[in-house]
Amino acid sequence: MPLLVMKFGGTSVADLGRIANAAAKVRREVARGYDVIVIVSAMSGKTNELVGWVEATSPLFDAREYDAVVSSGENVTAGLMALTLQEMDVPARSWQGWQVPILTTSAHSAARFIDIPRASIDAKFAEGFKVAVVAGFQGVSPEGRITTLGRGGSDTTAVAFAAAFGAERCDIYTDVDGVYTTDPRITDRARKLDRIAFEEMLELASLGAKVLQTRSVELAMRYKVRLRVLSSFEDNDESSGTLVCDEEDIMESKVVSGVAYSRDEAKMTLVKVQDRPGIAAAIFGPLSDAGVNVDMIVQNISEQENGGAFTDMTFSCPTNQVIRARKAMDDARAAGLISYADLVQDTDVAKVSVVGIGMRSHAGVAATMFKALAAENINIKVIATSEIKISVLIDRKYMELAVQALHDAFELQKA
Amino acid sequence: MPLLVMKFGGTSVADLGRIANAAAKVRREVARGYDVIVIVSAMSGKTNELVGWVEATSPLFDAREYDAVVSSGENVTAGLMALTLQEMDVPARSWQGWQVPILTTSAHSAARFIDIPRASIDAKFAEGFKVAVVAGFQGVSPEGRITTLGRGGSDTTAVAFAAAFGAERCDIYTDVDGVYTTDPRITDRARKLDRIAFEEMLELASLGAKVLQTRSVELAMRYKVRLRVLSSFEDNDESSGTLVCDEEDIMESKVVSGVAYSRDEAKMTLVKVQDRPGIAAAIFGPLSDAGVNVDMIVQNISEQENGGAFTDMTFSCPTNQVIRARKAMDDARAAGLISYADLVQDTDVAKVSVVGIGMRSHAGVAATMFKALAAENINIKVIATSEIKISVLIDRKYMELAVQALHDAFELQKA
Repeated sequence: MPLLVMKFGGTSVADLGRIANAAAKVRREVARGYDVIVIVSAMSGKTNELVGWVEATSPLFDAREYDAVVSSGENVTAGLMALTLQEMDVPARSWQGWQVPILTTSAHSAARFIDIPRASIDAKFAEGFKVAVVAGFQGVSPEGRITTLGRGGSDTTAVAFAAAFGAERCDIYTDVDGVYTTDPRITDRARKLDRIAFEEMLELASLGAKVLQTRSVELAMRYKVRLRVLSSFEDNDESSGTLVCDEEDIMESKVVSGVAYSRDEAKMTLVKVQDRPGIAAAIFGPLSDAGVNVDMIVQNISEQENGGAFTDMTFSCPTNQVIRARKAMDDARAAGLISYADLVQDTDVAKVSVVGIGMRSHAGVAATMFKALAAENINIKVIATSEIKISVLIDRKYMELAVQALHDAFELQKA
Repeated sequence: MPLLVMKFGGTSVADLGRIANAAAKVRREVARGYDVIVIVSAMSGKTNELVGWVEATSPLFDAREYDAVVSSGENVTAGLMALTLQEMDVPARSWQGWQVPILTTSAHSAARFIDIPRASIDAKFAEGFKVAVVAGFQGVSPEGRITTLGRGGSDTTAVAFAAAFGAERCDIYTDVDGVYTTDPRITDRARKLDRIAFEEMLELASLGAKVLQTRSVELAMRYKVRLRVLSSFEDNDESSGTLVCDEEDIMESKVVSGVAYSRDEAKMTLVKVQDRPGIAAAIFGPLSDAGVNVDMIVQNISEQENGGAFTDMTFSCPTNQVIRARKAMDDARAAGLISYADLVQDTDVAKVSVVGIGMRSHAGVAATMFKALAAENINIKVIATSEIKISVLIDRKYMELAVQALHDAFELQKA
């Protein structure tokens, strides 16, 4: 029996009516002859509520308990989805992560898959069940504790199941009808893309375009999973949404495919760090150990003072990791691993990026970008580049303006 | 290390502030030298919300999915309680049912304990953890599906853990400061009991006094668990609350100890049942198979008509099982197992009961009860008695009046 993975995000299962709407889409695929694995997120708002409780209880929370708490929203949706399908006479049951069991590493809140054994679900398909509903975002560690995959992790669950079960396609149902050149809420000139290369999607995802979780795209690229993003709220056909695919499946790519942004960035600067070989490792090792996802890094040139060499080290990380980062730095200083005069944080920044595979073969993208920002008097605080993207950190108040200016500068409204 | 089980109900963990308040009580017992197993309910309102979703989705729900959904509230509280204790520097971790694992039968939504292995929790106590927080109300079946114990099941979890771990005492923290002669909301003459016998508590619990789940009292009686009911919202000492204990530990018991009531009763009458040997089994077998908890049963005398013998059979069951009961009866009739002319339901009834161990040696309790109700012009629809209780089904609108009249008639306000 051909198999499909269908993933429904939080807004697609926000209430019982929407769960019924999603279930109807599942039923239609069953009627077409598919066995279906449905991956569900928590009803929208639920995970935020749980995260809020955990953070209010314990700012430096035990990630094992965090995971145990925040994973519960998906369990609720999984059960309700199975019940809804049963009411539609579609034989279905739900699985929580530990029941499959979805084996992951012990890296709580950022766990990675070790194995997804097929036996339990295959046995039910063999019995005549048509749909396996699996709680997204979660797994179980070798120690038997509940793990989660990080925010948006249900996308990754979906792709991993598609890979493990050899699914014909992995459809990610969400509240938008595909991947856009940029966020349509920021400019109405944003245009839906019919196709986008894995690499581009990867940059867009990791840069804050919230359509897909980064790791889901990585996994899809590695296992050649045909990944489609489409709307829960529309009638779809085979050509709906955006297909995320190999570069060679895209006829002609533009230099820049999209503009991404992220409000959720903080800039932290260690002032007067004693400069010596190994200092970067001494700083970023503890940050990594503390689970801080450092993104951009800038090191000033070293200055001599009082017989020693000093530098300023700037890095960016997600806003909600600032407390954690500060503690990791304070602890490292207290332990004598590093020394610095001050740790300055700026949480009023945003990251804006342009992404495109075409950049590899086109010069001048950076120049166009910086010129467009300069024309709007937007000051650039930090720059980072990769083969197919250029990112800048700017004052948050200019974020929308920057996105609009860049969208225009690269003429992304044109197909 | 002496061990205590402390159970906190929904109102005692209704929000983060109350969880902190409960955790402070746990910390105090730890400071006194106890290892503590904390059993938590869902934050108040959460389970009702989940049950509402399940029932709205599927009136005749798959109980396995129901259990998977409604058990999630306790998982949230368990994690938050562990985090709160950690913040108070009390080494703690949470366990979900499957992690212990709390092994139960497969009777979903009414599962019974098979085993509570101590190894996982004992190992953590040996490592220096002082508190094991366990999600109440839930377990895992031999098939690996999540089970629940029925509403109020966290009390039963608490007593079962107290028995399994040989706890010195099992303290049930709730929103009242003990067991009363009747519900103080119905009469301000209600009086708190310092002690109550297991048998009496059992009748009160099963009759609708919502302080403790019936099965928790049964278990406590069987395993001689010292069970105490006390308030989360007061400072307590050793003599606070109500101790549920052996009959012989109570110096002098009154004839009647309390008046209980239940609004959650429906009366169903099968009209013109064809009367024959085995008809009761043919009716109540299918009801039991459908998970309907039949309480009172009355069979009218048989009448001859058209050459056959016919009777009316009346039974009561919880209001939320009426649909289920009706379906079981319709199915049994369709299968030719029983025949009846009509199935009449009356959901506007309530049950009121008087309970007391003293009844065993005192005559005249029934007469006093019926006289008190008659004096208020309250019509009795069904009567049921046991060795230590008398229950009547009456119109729901008279319920409060009946409780007040009986409380006065048996002079329960006097110690």
